[in-house]
Amino acid sequence: MDQVDFVNGKTRVYGIVGDPIEQVRSPEMVTWEMQRRQHNAVLVPIHIARDEFDSVMPDLMRIQNLDGLIFTIPFKAKAIALAKNLGPQATRIGAINVLKKQTDGQWRGEIFDGIGCVEAFKRRGIAIQDKRLQLIGLGGAGSAICVALAYEKPSLMRLFDINPKTTERMVNLVKSISPQTTVELGKPHSEGVDILLNASPVGMLSDTRLPLEVLKFNKELVVFDAIVMPENTPLLTLAQNCGCEVVRGREMMLGQISKIVDYFFTP
Amino acid sequence: MDQVDFVNGKTRVYGIVGDPIEQVRSPEMVTWEMQRRQHNAVLVPIHIARDEFDSVMPDLMRIQNLDGLIFTIPFKAKAIALAKNLGPQATRIGAINVLKKQTDGQWRGEIFDGIGCVEAFKRRGIAIQDKRLQLIGLGGAGSAICVALAYEKPSLMRLFDINPKTTERMVNLVKSISPQTTVELGKPHSEGVDILLNASPVGMLSDTRLPLEVLKFNKELVVFDAIVMPENTPLLTLAQNCGCEVVRGREMMLGQISKIVDYFFTP
Repeated sequence: MDQVDFVNGKTRVYGIVGDPIEQVRSPEMVTWEMQRRQHNAVLVPIHIARDEFDSVMPDLMRIQNLDGLIFTIPFKAKAIALAKNLGPQATRIGAINVLKKQTDGQWRGEIFDGIGCVEAFKRRGIAIQDKRLQLIGLGGAGSAICVALAYEKPSLMRLFDINPKTTERMVNLVKSISPQTTVELGKPHSEGVDILLNASPVGMLSDTRLPLEVLKFNKELVVFDAIVMPENTPLLTLAQNCGCEVVRGREMMLGQISKIVDYFFTP
Repeated sequence: MDQVDFVNGKTRVYGIVGDPIEQVRSPEMVTWEMQRRQHNAVLVPIHIARDEFDSVMPDLMRIQNLDGLIFTIPFKAKAIALAKNLGPQATRIGAINVLKKQTDGQWRGEIFDGIGCVEAFKRRGIAIQDKRLQLIGLGGAGSAICVALAYEKPSLMRLFDINPKTTERMVNLVKSISPQTTVELGKPHSEGVDILLNASPVGMLSDTRLPLEVLKFNKELVVFDAIVMPENTPLLTLAQNCGCEVVRGREMMLGQISKIVDYFFTP
């Protein structure tokens, strides 16, 4: 034996593009998911300097056996310009984090943060439809989560973001996607709510704050946090102490990876 | 476990560039050698359409974590234009098959076909120095083998190629590299020779011909064939039937891979 079994001349190549790149987890996780499904494919890190993105990307996308790209910081906003056409959620939000080469050779973009969040709930057997939701944070990931949740047709969506303009834009989007959903604004709380979702950065890493003012939760509440590190944010710790079911950022990440691989390999 | 262990965000990326690309063996073999040496690195196939090589390559080489490239058909002649500076054998031959990014960010080119051939002999413990050689075929691989052999200072080099201009150029190169080596031309034969080397395509795949007119070899002769498929060419079969030691194309390929990985990871 003097060869490896995970890459050869027929391997289809995928990449995650970012600056910096060393911290990304997609190479080992997406490659694992692709190979688990018996695809001869690998996803490699692609470090592009931020001031070279516009000049380098169009040529990089001419690699014949490159079939898909994921975009991370700082390229999520810029990447949409590379797409020839867009999926429904990318069209609504105006951003993408994934490009795939279609069978006609043209590149199609979609955003999967919200799709991954919905997938995490599906895997837990928790329906979103007809539920009452509180969503905190409508930034990059939060706006994508907001749109994906709206497609599930909840009965109520309470939205909060520190930026009122962002909030207003999301209200209009939710109403256009799901006219039957009641939309409420204002300070976030968990009363009269079935699922509380945090998509703000409050509670990340060593931040000990909660993203809302609260002392305890009703144990019927389901609590989700998009934050991956730490696994147990202050919000999720409180929720678990109150006996609530919690859904973690890691589950959203795994859900997103699964849906991205579906997307890459569905014509 | 939901991740692989051979690629992550810190992985350094290498590629083999060709058109077509599916037949190449470097991805599994070079990646194996890099990982055996504990480098966090992978070599992937990169299929560039031949009419897009000149426009795509300079941008592709701006990927910050791309550290090296191997070139195969049809790009071996064109690739030299991408090198900022050249190693000694590439300078002599005017072609490269490997580019590596130096620590200053500039790309350096070298050609390893001949270096791989010499390495194969070293691994067998067969010295080239002061030996009498017959080399048949001075094309892409043959000219590189010719130059690499000259650096080993054999006492005699008999050269043959169907193109007399190529032969003349190689005579001059050998004389400039190793003034003490006697150079002879003419129809190839194995008399008065210690090592017979075939670098012509005669005997490849289903070609049943020998690259020289011969009925039997002296059993002291060492016979080398650069052809990888089939493993036993008509030339090597005859040599083995005569009791000669043979050195195979696969050994040259493995020798080349080892020397290329040395090159990639030596500052």
